Amino acid sequence: MTDGDRSPVTVLGLGPMGRALAGAFLRDGHPTTVWNRTASKADALVAQGAARALTAADAIAASPLVIACVIDYDAVHTIVEPAADALKGRTLVNLTADSPERARRTAAWADDHGIGYLDGAIMSPTETIGGPSAVVLYSGPEDLYREHRPTLASLGGTAAHLGSDPGRAAAYDVALLDLFWTSMSGLVHAFALAGAEGVTAAELAPFARGISDLMPGVIDEFARHIDDGVHPGDASTIASALASMEHIAHVSHARGLDTGVMDAARAAARRAVEAGHGGDSFSRLAETLAGPSAAPVSRG
Amino acid sequence: MTDGDRSPVTVLGLGPMGRALAGAFLRDGHPTTVWNRTASKADALVAQGAARALTAADAIAASPLVIACVIDYDAVHTIVEPAADALKGRTLVNLTADSPERARRTAAWADDHGIGYLDGAIMSPTETIGGPSAVVLYSGPEDLYREHRPTLASLGGTAAHLGSDPGRAAAYDVALLDLFWTSMSGLVHAFALAGAEGVTAAELAPFARGISDLMPGVIDEFARHIDDGVHPGDASTIASALASMEHIAHVSHARGLDTGVMDAARAAARRAVEAGHGGDSFSRLAETLAGPSAAPVSRG
Ligand SMILES: NC(=O)c1ccc[n+]([C@@H]2O[C@H](COP(=O)([O-])OP(=O)(O)OC[C@H]3O[C@@H](n4cnc5c(N)ncnc54)[C@H](OP(=O)(O)O)[C@@H]3O)[C@@H](O)[C@H]2O)c1
Ligand SMILES: NC(=O)c1ccc[n+]([C@@H]2O[C@H](COP(=O)([O-])OP(=O)(O)OC[C@H]3O[C@@H](n4cnc5c(N)ncnc54)[C@H](OP(=O)(O)O)[C@@H]3O)[C@@H](O)[C@H]2O)c1
Repeated sequence: MTDGDRSPVTVLGLGPMGRALAGAFLRDGHPTTVWNRTASKADALVAQGAARALTAADAIAASPLVIACVIDYDAVHTIVEPAADALKGRTLVNLTADSPERARRTAAWADDHGIGYLDGAIMSPTETIGGPSAVVLYSGPEDLYREHRPTLASLGGTAAHLGSDPGRAAAYDVALLDLFWTSMSGLVHAFALAGAEGVTAAELAPFARGISDLMPGVIDEFARHIDDGVHPGDASTIASALASMEHIAHVSHARGLDTGVMDAARAAARRAVEAGHGGDSFSRLAETLAGPSAAPVSRG
Repeated sequence: MTDGDRSPVTVLGLGPMGRALAGAFLRDGHPTTVWNRTASKADALVAQGAARALTAADAIAASPLVIACVIDYDAVHTIVEPAADALKGRTLVNLTADSPERARRTAAWADDHGIGYLDGAIMSPTETIGGPSAVVLYSGPEDLYREHRPTLASLGGTAAHLGSDPGRAAAYDVALLDLFWTSMSGLVHAFALAGAEGVTAAELAPFARGISDLMPGVIDEFARHIDDGVHPGDASTIASALASMEHIAHVSHARGLDTGVMDAARAAARRAVEAGHGGDSFSRLAETLAGPSAAPVSRG
């Protein structure tokens, strides 16, 4: 519960995340107007006190701050373009995940239409929203962020403004989702492989949590290696990782499992070994995965 | 420091992990004999009090308990087969990572040669060995495990005996390494992608740790879904994951990065959507990744 601020807010999009956002605003006492393409998804929120708008333009007209959270930016544009007049002079905070380039294009579109625009990215699941472990990243004009921060604080947890480049939240988002969805793909494959070996998911889970406990240490170590451009293999090497990955692929294949992700992962490791980096830390792959055209692009 | 037990132990293989194992035995006061194909890797351990053997057979002859920790089981067999006579009547604990099937074959070979055999898997990095956060899994004859547990306790942390099937530790190992190396592949790619977007590894790292904080909750939730065979998509869906993965692949491609792992991950998600599971939890993929021939195999 944040104190004081009771500004009205509109939420466009009521998938699992949009519903969580609207619920957090409602719980904090904000007059909350909701709209969703499929209207019935608003029912539970309306029962909790939300106002249901019949059109996106009506929803927008109800609040100075409009949150959009739908499946992608195509859906965002489908919703907001016909309602550009209603949005004029208001602030649109787009919490939909998409690419940095699209965030910049949507910001330019908003600018052309006299719409204040912040781009954001939600880095934690629905059940965190409104609580201390929510993580939401924002980028775009700093003054706009400051103006709406009291209302956005209802989403809870850690909020970070990453700078005025509207693409910056999406840049973090896409990299963090890359880590997340690749890890998730590894997790479901690990459960599938364990199952094929007669190990239940409940049996594997405590040890899988043990693996995830290793991540923070590895993240910090790899970050140092990568920013320094030095990849010492004294604790473990790409060659040793590749040997492990060959076993994983071999067993998975023998058990009839899809091996696509591991095949691609070991192909990347193999290329690093072939380029003479077999004795380096696995962190070296951050370089070998980046092609020659992947040099950092400077931003304004 | 474990009290009492000071039995001699031999370590074959002195890569980063073999050195960590030998170091932990030495620190606990075990007379420790070491051997490595490349002899110079023993130098630092010898300075700390280890005995250097000139041949694997000599090393084996020095102790009732022999640990092997090399790159794979081919290397294990290259080392132990010519020394089978020396191993007779002793216990070989193979802490090399490989497949369950190879663990069972090595156990059968050991049995044929009158060698006690435990198969093991180390689930934590070198720096944990000997300390509270080490995780080592064992399988094979229970009595053999009990007999050597006091010595093996010097490796520290959590030790679990997973049953008499010698392949069981490797089954857990291969599944957990699948999670680990797939996650690592996601991590280096995330850093590469962030770098291509002008975000340094140090800037991304705190948020990447935030992503890894989500894993334990997801692991437990997915484990329940998978063991129950029910995959409710009320908090997030495969279709929504696929949309995210498309953005990641798109941005990666535009930045000239290798997209192999994400391409394979989203192909798997797409197949699940095409099979009608788009509204399910991502945990459903543990089923769709397992082909029809991937049914659990019962073990004796
Ligand atoms: N769920 C999470 O845990 C989570 C976590 C972090 C970030 N996010 C992000 O939050 C955003 C929303 O995710 P979500 O989980 O709520 O579910 P989602 O499945 O990604 O999005 C569902 C929402 O998109 C709407 N939609 C889809 N196509 C549309 C179109 N053509 N026109 C208008 N509306 C359209 C849906 O409307 P209908 O109801 O009419 O289909 C619904 O409101 C995504 O960018 C996701 O990456 C989600
Ligand atoms: N490092 C870790 O953090 C870690 C964590 C968990 C599990 N493990 C597992 O521990 C095992 C050992 O890993 P590691 O990190 O120490 O390094 P590694 O690179 O996997 O193995 C290096 C060891 O294998 C030996 N070797 C390789 N080919 C050989 C051959 N044909 N004949 C004889 N010896 C051979 C090397 O001898 P030379 O010195 O003569 O080349 C060296 O002793 C692996 O199974 C690994 O998966 C490692």
